[in-house]
Amino acid sequence: MIRRLIDKIRETKAPICVGLDPMLNYIPEHVTKKAFGEFGETLEGAAEAIWQFNKEIIDKTWDLIPAVKPQIAMYEQFGIEGLKVYQKTVDYCQEKGLIVIGDAKRGDIGSTSAAYAAGHLGTVKVGNTVCSGFHTDMLTVNPYLGTDGVKPFVDVCKAEDKGIFVLVKTSNPSSGEFQDKLIDGKPLYELVAEKVVEWGSDCMDGDYSNVGAVVGATYPEMSRILRKLMPHTYFLVPGYGAQGGTAEDLRHCFNEDGLGAIVNSSRGIIAAYKNAAYEKFGPENFGDASRQAVIDMTADIGRVL
Amino acid sequence: MIRRLIDKIRETKAPICVGLDPMLNYIPEHVTKKAFGEFGETLEGAAEAIWQFNKEIIDKTWDLIPAVKPQIAMYEQFGIEGLKVYQKTVDYCQEKGLIVIGDAKRGDIGSTSAAYAAGHLGTVKVGNTVCSGFHTDMLTVNPYLGTDGVKPFVDVCKAEDKGIFVLVKTSNPSSGEFQDKLIDGKPLYELVAEKVVEWGSDCMDGDYSNVGAVVGATYPEMSRILRKLMPHTYFLVPGYGAQGGTAEDLRHCFNEDGLGAIVNSSRGIIAAYKNAAYEKFGPENFGDASRQAVIDMTADIGRVL
Repeated sequence: MIRRLIDKIRETKAPICVGLDPMLNYIPEHVTKKAFGEFGETLEGAAEAIWQFNKEIIDKTWDLIPAVKPQIAMYEQFGIEGLKVYQKTVDYCQEKGLIVIGDAKRGDIGSTSAAYAAGHLGTVKVGNTVCSGFHTDMLTVNPYLGTDGVKPFVDVCKAEDKGIFVLVKTSNPSSGEFQDKLIDGKPLYELVAEKVVEWGSDCMDGDYSNVGAVVGATYPEMSRILRKLMPHTYFLVPGYGAQGGTAEDLRHCFNEDGLGAIVNSSRGIIAAYKNAAYEKFGPENFGDASRQAVIDMTADIGRVL
Repeated sequence: MIRRLIDKIRETKAPICVGLDPMLNYIPEHVTKKAFGEFGETLEGAAEAIWQFNKEIIDKTWDLIPAVKPQIAMYEQFGIEGLKVYQKTVDYCQEKGLIVIGDAKRGDIGSTSAAYAAGHLGTVKVGNTVCSGFHTDMLTVNPYLGTDGVKPFVDVCKAEDKGIFVLVKTSNPSSGEFQDKLIDGKPLYELVAEKVVEWGSDCMDGDYSNVGAVVGATYPEMSRILRKLMPHTYFLVPGYGAQGGTAEDLRHCFNEDGLGAIVNSSRGIIAAYKNAAYEKFGPENFGDASRQAVIDMTADIGRVL
């Protein structure tokens, strides 16, 4: 899977993914109005608005990017109706040839992680029939429960050629509260990084492993160290743009081969039309604003590579 | 919410919850056969089998217990169809007056945790209308991202009188890999415990806080220390029974008032009919086997209180 992602990154010359995290207040009024008109101010109405919003952004950006990263929480908050649109979005992106990284941050004890892995990346057996649930290509995973909570995801990566990104150092302001704590002089995130390397070592797919890491753009000094600790681990890098990370901050996330990282932007792309730099497009043309934001982000990151 | 849970625990004299974690191989053949006959060997068929299985167990145990803990992964693995049954199970248990603890172990950056909190415990606004998604009463939460990843759940607990249980020390074999690591001489789980106390301090509901902790039954020495560190924090205790925790191991999870902990059993209750001790019931009467297992578990724990 990571080889497929790298091929797509080379093809598009864009080491970026679009975070499909549709908050209702990002969606232009003409879209919500139409959806609520049809389905009422209901969970279904919200789901329809999200779907129309996503579809337009995908249609306007898919040829420029290798991957998307839908944040499942933004769908899950609308219950079943929201999750139906999550699935519809995954399907639609895959039809367009995009790699879909489900941002679910799942992780539990072994048997439970196995169920998450089956539902999001693998298959389940019903009687003698093999079925599949959400079938994303890659998934983010939380490491707090240790090896037996992560291993079932790694096993599915091996069996089905899928990929995961394990949280190592997250982009949020209080990520250091536990992640930066020193253990025998070494921060916890480095310990997690060492485990990620171990978990990924027999899951190689070319020069990189199908077991990747989430490393926030907002802590550039740490990403420099992590890059060295994990030379064959792909980084999924959140925090660029709206969360404060700049292209300069990203430099250390990449290896000398220009590979090793895929940078996510959510708000900065999908709500670009609300940004002063793109307001000339207007809410009616929000998809075109997103397309321009993708072009600009790719150029911005290209500068430091 | 925690006061409501305590009232129910006193009323039933049972500090236990039934883990509704229906693996397909726990479900008796006559149930799966009927469901697959109706819906085929499909995700729908699996969902129907789970629903019929859950319903029977709830019908046979609801009057003996204060709460249930459905593990959402076991539903999520069957995609949308599975999650519909999760919701149906939540609804049905709440109609029976049970408190529902959604075992979802969610946790993310602030804005994303806010979406999870809204979807599982709170409400979402669609236009001017307030809607709700999964509306469980309590939820398990992962602390790896620190305060700003947990705070949105605490805020919903305050606003809507709901509860959470934050992972402190989990029951699985490799939980110590990160959680036991010493930081200035103190294991990480104690640091997390201190934060849980802090997060819960302005969220009191009687003698206990609506912000609880997950503390595994499988590490009794640690639960003894944690009990002292967190006198006003309710513990959700997994690991009893099938995972190896005994009633003796649970003693330290309780305070001297006989309160302070609710012990979960999943397999030991819902698949009781497969256990030699209950095989006289036979698969046809799996619900009766579960009822007897609840009675026995309550007595077993009662011995050490």
